[in-house]
Amino acid sequence: MEDGRRFHCPSALGFYGYLLDPISKISLAPGGLGAIYTPPLARLIEQLQRLPSVGPKTAQRLALHLLKRPDAEVENLAQALLDAKKRVGQCQVCFHLSAEPVCDICRHPQRDNSVICVVSDPRDVIALEKTREFRGKYHVLGGVISPMDGIGPEQLTIQPLLHRVSQPEIAEVILAISPSVEGETTTLYLGKLLQPFTKVTRIAFGLPMGGDLEYADEVTLARALEGRREL
Amino acid sequence: MEDGRRFHCPSALGFYGYLLDPISKISLAPGGLGAIYTPPLARLIEQLQRLPSVGPKTAQRLALHLLKRPDAEVENLAQALLDAKKRVGQCQVCFHLSAEPVCDICRHPQRDNSVICVVSDPRDVIALEKTREFRGKYHVLGGVISPMDGIGPEQLTIQPLLHRVSQPEIAEVILAISPSVEGETTTLYLGKLLQPFTKVTRIAFGLPMGGDLEYADEVTLARALEGRREL
Repeated sequence: MEDGRRFHCPSALGFYGYLLDPISKISLAPGGLGAIYTPPLARLIEQLQRLPSVGPKTAQRLALHLLKRPDAEVENLAQALLDAKKRVGQCQVCFHLSAEPVCDICRHPQRDNSVICVVSDPRDVIALEKTREFRGKYHVLGGVISPMDGIGPEQLTIQPLLHRVSQPEIAEVILAISPSVEGETTTLYLGKLLQPFTKVTRIAFGLPMGGDLEYADEVTLARALEGRREL
Repeated sequence: MEDGRRFHCPSALGFYGYLLDPISKISLAPGGLGAIYTPPLARLIEQLQRLPSVGPKTAQRLALHLLKRPDAEVENLAQALLDAKKRVGQCQVCFHLSAEPVCDICRHPQRDNSVICVVSDPRDVIALEKTREFRGKYHVLGGVISPMDGIGPEQLTIQPLLHRVSQPEIAEVILAISPSVEGETTTLYLGKLLQPFTKVTRIAFGLPMGGDLEYADEVTLARALEGRREL
C-alpha cells in the first residue's frame, strides 16, 4: 500500500537529473560509479571527522590542504600527535596535564605553596595561567560532582586535595569552578569539606569587564550586587 | 622624553592586576612563572595551528580533546595522515588525486570515454562526483590561468589535455571552471584551443536551485537570462 503511493524517482537526485541534463543525456546517470575519494584519502577524512566540530566539509578541506603541504609538515603533525598522546599524563600532585611526573607549576621554585586554586579541568588552569596573575598552585578535580552522570566525590581528585589542604603550610584554597548547577554543588561541597583546615574563598562573579549593565542577565547582576565592595 | 611620558604599568596586565587582587595580594604577580603548556602539548597545538582556519583556541581545544581519547584513535589519525600523504598522488591520465597510477574514475569500465569534464582543482571533481549525475571522465588543470600569479598555460596540465582531446573517441569537452576573472580567461582560452578537435561546452550559470530572483546579483541574473531555454 505504502509502496504504491511513493513518488517514483530513479535515483536520489533523479528529478533534478533530468533538469540538469540538456545536452549529453548519455553521460549523465545516477550512482554506482565508484568511490568519491581514493581509499587513503577517505580514511584520512574519516579520521579527521572524529575531531570535535569537524564535519564532512571541514574534514575534506583539511585533508586536501594537508595533501598539498610538504611531507615534513605532515610528518611533524603526525609525530606531534603521537608524542603528545604518549608523553602527556597527569601531574602526581595537582593532576594538571604534564609530561613529567610532577608538573612545571608544582615544581616552580618561585610559586607560592600556601595557596591552592581548585579547578575542574586542565583547561581552567590554562585559562588562569594566561591571565598571568596567579602565582600559587593548582588542583584539578577532573570534573564536577554530577549524580546524574554518576560522578560523585570519589570519581574526582578530592581525597588527594584533602591531603594537600591538611598540610600546615596551606593558608588559602581558592575555588574557581564554573557556576553551573553541578559546579555550585561542587563548590558548596568543597567549602564545607575544607573549611575545617584553612581559609576557603571562591572567585568573584559579577559583570564582566567591558560588559554593559543593561544587557547583563538577572543572575549575573544579582551576583554583582551581592559581591559589591567598598571603594 | 617619550619614556618619561609613558603610563607606568608594572606588567602587561598590571592595571587590572590590582583590581583583581582583593585578598591574597602575595599570590598575584605578573609573568615569568613558566610555560602555559607542557612541551609535547605545546608542540601539538603549534602543529594544529598550521591547519587552515584553526587558530590558537581551536588548536588548544583539538589538542585537549585528543589527549582524552584512547591511544588507538590518536594512532589511527597519525597513521591516516602519514598514509594519505605517502600514497595519494596524481592520476597519470586526468591528474585527479589517486593512490594508484591511474585513478578509479579513469579505470572505471562503465564510464563514458567520449566526454571529458575539465575542472581546475581535485575538489571540483569531488563536488561533481557527489551530484552522481556525470558519468564521463575528468581532467584536472591544477589551477587557472593567472598571469598575476605567474600561472600561464604551461603551468597547467593543458598539454596532456590537448593530447587526450585529440583522440578520435572524444565527442565532447565540458568546461566546468568557476566564473572568476581568471576562470573566465581559462575557459575562453581552452574553448579556442579545443574547438578545432571536438564539441566544447561549458556548464550553465544562472539562478541557483532554491534561489530567490529578488536577491540574485545582477551578473547572475544577466547570465540566467542569457542562458534561457525553451520549455
